[in-house]
Amino acid sequence: MSVSLKEYIKRNSERVDRALDRYLPRASTKPAVIHRAMRYSLFAGGKRLRPILTIASAEACGGKIQGAIPLACSVECIHTYSLIHDDLPCMDNDDFRRGKPTSHKVFGEGMAVLAGDALLTIAFEIAACACPTARYSQSDLVGELARAAGSLLLVAGQAADLEGEGKKISHQQLRFIHERKTSALLTCSMRLGAMSANATAAQLRFVEQAGYNLGMAFQVIDDILDATKTTKELGKTAGKDEKVQKATYPSILGMKKARAEANRFTLAAHRAIRNLGPRALRLKQLADYLLIRQC
Amino acid sequence: MSVSLKEYIKRNSERVDRALDRYLPRASTKPAVIHRAMRYSLFAGGKRLRPILTIASAEACGGKIQGAIPLACSVECIHTYSLIHDDLPCMDNDDFRRGKPTSHKVFGEGMAVLAGDALLTIAFEIAACACPTARYSQSDLVGELARAAGSLLLVAGQAADLEGEGKKISHQQLRFIHERKTSALLTCSMRLGAMSANATAAQLRFVEQAGYNLGMAFQVIDDILDATKTTKELGKTAGKDEKVQKATYPSILGMKKARAEANRFTLAAHRAIRNLGPRALRLKQLADYLLIRQC
Repeated sequence: MSVSLKEYIKRNSERVDRALDRYLPRASTKPAVIHRAMRYSLFAGGKRLRPILTIASAEACGGKIQGAIPLACSVECIHTYSLIHDDLPCMDNDDFRRGKPTSHKVFGEGMAVLAGDALLTIAFEIAACACPTARYSQSDLVGELARAAGSLLLVAGQAADLEGEGKKISHQQLRFIHERKTSALLTCSMRLGAMSANATAAQLRFVEQAGYNLGMAFQVIDDILDATKTTKELGKTAGKDEKVQKATYPSILGMKKARAEANRFTLAAHRAIRNLGPRALRLKQLADYLLIRQC
Repeated sequence: MSVSLKEYIKRNSERVDRALDRYLPRASTKPAVIHRAMRYSLFAGGKRLRPILTIASAEACGGKIQGAIPLACSVECIHTYSLIHDDLPCMDNDDFRRGKPTSHKVFGEGMAVLAGDALLTIAFEIAACACPTARYSQSDLVGELARAAGSLLLVAGQAADLEGEGKKISHQQLRFIHERKTSALLTCSMRLGAMSANATAAQLRFVEQAGYNLGMAFQVIDDILDATKTTKELGKTAGKDEKVQKATYPSILGMKKARAEANRFTLAAHRAIRNLGPRALRLKQLADYLLIRQC
């Protein structure tokens, strides 16, 4: 526990990257274009936030990093697929992501759809390899991932977001979207980490509360950064939300209240994390890090 | 075993439909549009061929229909997702499927992408509920489905198909596409049925051989029907392959040799099915039915 948080993030990102590289077919595997497209987005310099939360949650519940790696990789594949599809012209129509042209700009729309499909699919292939524990079967782990990614959560958020574009939506509706589009997968990342550590029901509940609140804080801050940072700073198109008249926390509540909301969610996350005891130090540090991040 | 094949197909289609209806969220569940879109394509009058092959394969290996139902439903969700994405303007750009407007014509492109994503995801949620057997764990079942749907098989076929459009491709390349785009999921449907029945390694091998050959026969006949039937007869745009200069068995081999290929694959399927013994009667009947189908 002696290394800095920065070093902790770096080491675990590298672990996740190495594992993802092993799980994915080589870029030269036929048809090469699909494997190049999968790897292009998966290794585009993402922050690996979700996998690191999976790992930190496993440690917070007394588990080992190694046991959390397959599920950490699954979650990252789901996250990357959702970005590829979300960036499509028929969805958010974004040309840049993580400072690079988006998948459909490089590989064409059809191939981008397929690369997303393949990443979503491999997420389940990887999750099926995760070790069950005394309390959680393989079925529990795969089911957890599928529910978070499905039409009641992640896809529900995307669908509600797509429906709401250009319309005036309420704070409540925005919360519905953010809970599903962002918070659900972040919560799932943490729950899966806890499950890989054979967490007790009480531990899993605290991890879930922490995940929900961190996820909400994360999205509110994302909204704030979109409105206040440059495209270069973010690595993706800044000011996009305002341009397409997408409702955000700052646009609905004003910047000051939006920041207060982010603080409030982070505090609630800290309360939940505290219940997990001293092994949750990394989660605590990550909660603070997420609040002050600048990109 | 006294009912006709037609009645057998009808009864099992209805069983699968009832199960799918239970697995899927109600059409009114928020956001309603995504659940309406999922149900629109899933209940658009598909022939339920793959689920019926799952069930017949389970019976051929001494299993019960009920044990095969979750996996039969999973496969149908994957098949339906692949049709929705395949019909998108950025892929095959088809306006009709099963005699009805395609998903993106009704719900818009973005929502069609999401409906496909959600069906792909729920396939794994359903598969995670399937009962493991003495020989096959939940991990084996989910892994089997993920591999068939992934970038080495189903998505590989779609990607190679997309890349090959408008180009002159060889018989060998066409076979590469058909093996992955069609035969792999059909084989997987049958293997999953066998696995739900706790098939021996030998039974599973025969089922696999039957699946491969039935899948290939199915696709060759699909190519022939596209070239010889009307849009009304097929319920989807006929003559499409020729119009977009897509290579097909008839266009590469000529109609006569294409028919001979379909016969050859069907015969090979029959040889494999014969090894499964008398309980494989329905598989035998289905192999013949697939060869003479007119739509």
